[in-house]
Amino acid sequence: MTLTHVIYNNPDIPKALLQKVLQVSGPSTSQLYDENALDTLNSTHMIFLISPKCPPVAQEDDAFLNKITHILPNKKTAVLVLDSQNSLSISLLAKIRSLSRKNLLYSDIIDTSTASDEETAVKLLSMRRSLLDNQDMPVSLLNDWLKEMIGHHNTCTLCTGFGTNIRATPIEFTYHEEAFYFLSEGGEKFANLAVNPNVCIALYQEYSGFDKLEGIQVCGAAMFVDLFSEEYNTVITKRQLTPEQLKKLPVTLHMIKVLPHRFELLNSLFRKSGYEAKQVKELE
Amino acid sequence: MTLTHVIYNNPDIPKALLQKVLQVSGPSTSQLYDENALDTLNSTHMIFLISPKCPPVAQEDDAFLNKITHILPNKKTAVLVLDSQNSLSISLLAKIRSLSRKNLLYSDIIDTSTASDEETAVKLLSMRRSLLDNQDMPVSLLNDWLKEMIGHHNTCTLCTGFGTNIRATPIEFTYHEEAFYFLSEGGEKFANLAVNPNVCIALYQEYSGFDKLEGIQVCGAAMFVDLFSEEYNTVITKRQLTPEQLKKLPVTLHMIKVLPHRFELLNSLFRKSGYEAKQVKELE
Repeated sequence: MTLTHVIYNNPDIPKALLQKVLQVSGPSTSQLYDENALDTLNSTHMIFLISPKCPPVAQEDDAFLNKITHILPNKKTAVLVLDSQNSLSISLLAKIRSLSRKNLLYSDIIDTSTASDEETAVKLLSMRRSLLDNQDMPVSLLNDWLKEMIGHHNTCTLCTGFGTNIRATPIEFTYHEEAFYFLSEGGEKFANLAVNPNVCIALYQEYSGFDKLEGIQVCGAAMFVDLFSEEYNTVITKRQLTPEQLKKLPVTLHMIKVLPHRFELLNSLFRKSGYEAKQVKELE
Repeated sequence: MTLTHVIYNNPDIPKALLQKVLQVSGPSTSQLYDENALDTLNSTHMIFLISPKCPPVAQEDDAFLNKITHILPNKKTAVLVLDSQNSLSISLLAKIRSLSRKNLLYSDIIDTSTASDEETAVKLLSMRRSLLDNQDMPVSLLNDWLKEMIGHHNTCTLCTGFGTNIRATPIEFTYHEEAFYFLSEGGEKFANLAVNPNVCIALYQEYSGFDKLEGIQVCGAAMFVDLFSEEYNTVITKRQLTPEQLKKLPVTLHMIKVLPHRFELLNSLFRKSGYEAKQVKELE
């Protein structure tokens, strides 16, 4: 079970940022660093928020570093420095980097006095994926599960958007040669796709208990398939439709294709085989 | 059954824009205006794309106007003028506006030589809602259906995003006093919500036949509910949880509340009562 411990060394860090870090990196808990704190951790992942006190106290940072030295090479770790103007923070980050070796999976600077909400969000998203993406299941087994879980569904939610405009569309799909295909008479999603081809697809079972969770999230890029092209005709044939039938319709059935580049699978059954319930598969 | 007829008067209009108009306003079909075309229409809605020929021919526009004069007051109509530089187009739009009276539900200018993809998308989305939003079912009956259809589900897709970043999250919900509540240990959706509170929620049944379509799309604004506030405690109690239980957990369960401002309901059963299968409910 994943648990991220967010450790900060300065009680005066912006509370709103601490909250965002906690939310984005959850399941999580936070703790102000003190002498005894680090001995009691049962977390799987650590995020250090480093923000020197004002005025900075070099000895405190050294004491902090000494305290975490034995943990750094052993736990998957991320470090966020919250003040780029302070040379002590930067040198602290450099020391952490050299101590953590391969377990420091993400480090970055968020200058809380100048960073926009968007910049902060992009860094936190990147931190989450670097730190928490998991794939301890063998790829071939993961692929089998993916195929089986997709096969449980014929309908998904296709999410599209641009700017602050978000759209969730329940829609039937055809999964063919590792792509999702959708037939649609039209609608708002097409306006979104004309601006932003990035989409996210969700497939899931209704909740029926914590031990029966099953869901897939797919990130991908959408494109249109030419009407009555070979690919179009192949997909409609899989739906028991013929080009002749569709040509007789008074309206056009547009085809959207989504090429996945990331799958996130959640399945309680994975645990029974000794794997984490959440698995991530990234495609090139 | 809705069918939008897209009529354009100039064979040289940008094909990409015609395609977008068709897709966003679908179910739809398009037709280049000619002498005989308008007598054969069985559409419920019309969109006129007006783009004068180069060089413009005033007589042709007048002929076009004469041809559509009898249709304008009778069908729900939108007009897009595709060239703001041409005074003939603008005067044609003014004439159409005066003839259509209440049935001209949307008119706008898209200058295809300067409009960005975003500007065009925003106008097409606005046109679609102005022209095609439907609520022919009495409000009290629609509210009953809404409550019943939401009651069929305990899980939905919560869609969040900002910029080109889109996220679809399957998540259990609690519907309480006309708001959706979600409990979450954390994740990418929180990074999106920190930038953009606009969300879309989808609830649906897996596809089991064209006569059994059922789905809801909800547009709303997300906010966080303070941990262990009265509202928080009320909602977790509805989930058979107690504050004491949650306080013992090693992690924080964040609560997201979504206040809906728009519902789109799709239900094949509406047709059996004589209403359109798609109904829209907008809140103040």
